[in-house]
Amino acid sequence: MVVEIISVGTELLLGNIVNTNTAYLAKKCAGLGLSCYHQTVVGDNPKRLEDTFKQAYDRSDVVILGGGLGPTNDDLTKETVAKVMGLKLVEDKETLESIKAHFVKIGWKDIPDNNWKQALAPEGAIVVANSNGTAPGLIIPKDGKHVILMPGPPNEMIPMFEHDIEPYLRSLSDKILCSKMLKLVGTGESKAADMIKDILDTQTNPTVAPYAKTGQVHFRVTAMADSEEAGEELLKPMIDKLYERFGNMIYTTDEDETLEEVVVKLLSKKGLTITTAESCTGGLIGSMLVNVPGVSSVYKEGYITYSNEAKGKLLGVSEDTLSEYGAVSAETAKEMAEGGAKVSGADVCVAVTGIAGPEGGTAEKPVGLVYMACSYNGKTVVEKHNFSGNRQKVRDNSVVKALDLVRRMVAEV
Amino acid sequence: MVVEIISVGTELLLGNIVNTNTAYLAKKCAGLGLSCYHQTVVGDNPKRLEDTFKQAYDRSDVVILGGGLGPTNDDLTKETVAKVMGLKLVEDKETLESIKAHFVKIGWKDIPDNNWKQALAPEGAIVVANSNGTAPGLIIPKDGKHVILMPGPPNEMIPMFEHDIEPYLRSLSDKILCSKMLKLVGTGESKAADMIKDILDTQTNPTVAPYAKTGQVHFRVTAMADSEEAGEELLKPMIDKLYERFGNMIYTTDEDETLEEVVVKLLSKKGLTITTAESCTGGLIGSMLVNVPGVSSVYKEGYITYSNEAKGKLLGVSEDTLSEYGAVSAETAKEMAEGGAKVSGADVCVAVTGIAGPEGGTAEKPVGLVYMACSYNGKTVVEKHNFSGNRQKVRDNSVVKALDLVRRMVAEV
Repeated sequence: MVVEIISVGTELLLGNIVNTNTAYLAKKCAGLGLSCYHQTVVGDNPKRLEDTFKQAYDRSDVVILGGGLGPTNDDLTKETVAKVMGLKLVEDKETLESIKAHFVKIGWKDIPDNNWKQALAPEGAIVVANSNGTAPGLIIPKDGKHVILMPGPPNEMIPMFEHDIEPYLRSLSDKILCSKMLKLVGTGESKAADMIKDILDTQTNPTVAPYAKTGQVHFRVTAMADSEEAGEELLKPMIDKLYERFGNMIYTTDEDETLEEVVVKLLSKKGLTITTAESCTGGLIGSMLVNVPGVSSVYKEGYITYSNEAKGKLLGVSEDTLSEYGAVSAETAKEMAEGGAKVSGADVCVAVTGIAGPEGGTAEKPVGLVYMACSYNGKTVVEKHNFSGNRQKVRDNSVVKALDLVRRMVAEV
Repeated sequence: MVVEIISVGTELLLGNIVNTNTAYLAKKCAGLGLSCYHQTVVGDNPKRLEDTFKQAYDRSDVVILGGGLGPTNDDLTKETVAKVMGLKLVEDKETLESIKAHFVKIGWKDIPDNNWKQALAPEGAIVVANSNGTAPGLIIPKDGKHVILMPGPPNEMIPMFEHDIEPYLRSLSDKILCSKMLKLVGTGESKAADMIKDILDTQTNPTVAPYAKTGQVHFRVTAMADSEEAGEELLKPMIDKLYERFGNMIYTTDEDETLEEVVVKLLSKKGLTITTAESCTGGLIGSMLVNVPGVSSVYKEGYITYSNEAKGKLLGVSEDTLSEYGAVSAETAKEMAEGGAKVSGADVCVAVTGIAGPEGGTAEKPVGLVYMACSYNGKTVVEKHNFSGNRQKVRDNSVVKALDLVRRMVAEV
């Protein structure tokens, strides 16, 4: 089956945002065994949108459109698609109720006129709930073809795709695609690919594809099979082989599991609490931990100590250490971790101090130099990293390595 | 003049890479006053590439193609374009010499057969040197239309565009595009659009386009003019009109300026320091502040107080308040903000406590309920919000509203 992806949005035509949605959808479709030959971006102009959709609908089995489902007058995707497909728009009661509920919840008395039109759907369409916004998605099957409409914002589109659209598309094919995602920290993408060059060069079914994430490498292992069991059987020896190569670097094989979830689960299983002592990451590690539902039994409090004074006052880092070795040093990181554990009473403390840039670097201590320490069970491990990239990237890398340091230390004992 | 951008590459169709080239080119073209109505991605298939280019060449004045200029057999862009335009391929001597020189430089004795074909150019084309690779670019003017071919890798394409293509495109137009981005917090996209419906319905030059961001609305105001001054003159009355409608909701008109930058600049200008007391946001506000270079004079320390005990121990929130009103209450938020200011000695403290979900909601205090408080200059303002969406979205919205609360309170005095 041939799929075509159309993105609707003036921001894309103006280059104000990068089209990450299409890359996401294309990758997903490839994984589902759909062939994608065309991807298009078009604006909110009715005539051009109509022509673009018509062309795609003529030549493809599945057309996925993203964007233009919002409440404003220049959001025209649904109306245009219905027109080309020859379908009337009818009011969807459930959607209307959920829009009403949304506005009651946020405390508005009147629903803006514009939002009413979001309750209309082409006849015969499957309305797909949007758990992160007001515009629902639509699946419109007609004459063996399938048209999918989703909202443009990635934080609405991606959950909707995963929850409803992906299962629908999977049901169209008689082969099953089974996949696992091996996620690892501890080596770069090209080094990791080198380590399994022989596997990458000879793969057929299952296939192995590397993806670089900030501070991490993910390998998707995918098998095409007649049944789930047959797929699992194909996957297992390949997963085992990858574990032989990467060992403890791998923190999960579950696509949906994040590093912070693994850390929180591990701590929770062992009945341990953790605290954070952050300088250059400014609370980012704390916010990652707090993003894990149910973290409250594990994480009670954290310290953001951006200034030297705060490192002394809140964590008890000694003035001598700060003046002799500097705020960005192995010694300071160690005292931050040990001090944090002490003042909080937590079992584990992870501390980070570094130079995120763009200013503040020297020849001896360049931008990207980050020390991190983890104190646990009477032992403190300090690691030194040299990250490249801008301020955000240095900080994001620091968070990943710091969480992984906790994972490795706590898992060991 | 109308421009169309075509990207040629199977990696894009498979979603293995994100199409950053098109965003880059689109933004550049918009800045040059070229209107972009279509962007397309197509693979290395000769028939589909031919159809796609033919359609673009028919309907546009300028067609920019990226990718498919490499030495391998499936690199077909140049051949296909020449065929559709009815132009013969002839050997370009200068290109041939530079290819030879390249291979001498990297120490190869024989030039791969495939690379010879890179020295061919359609007759009448301007060959554009590639300082970062072997595939030259091409500018092909014909019958008042202009076809531009560039290599796909961004590190080859971008320098080539800036050095040769951009000046060429600028020479085609006598109009300049000027734009401002108004960014505001305090209302949703559809409400904001409602508030300027009369403007949106009658706009011509300048145009106004809304964009929804998490917790924010952005309006791009764009004018087409003969000169920068004339553009500014067109923009000014529209900007003034939008200020009349949205007033203090607007925090910047600078496209590159973020809310956290505005807050840090404002505090810095007034010589104020700030601290953060975060529960459900878990350090996210701190990490946003720390992401602003030069924040160190303004932000010294912050408190992540996820548990009730930590709210008491670190911020001095009273047990009575916590037991009587609960951790998620106006009273607790107020005491967190006042306590944070007191223990840190900072001039301003912003505090957030809420229910991010997915668990923990009740009928009385549903998921998405967030209280925030800002203490400054002897006064504490508390705000109550009901956010929708998942845990991440509740937290992201909280950060935006909390930063904006600081902005409004500090700007007032």
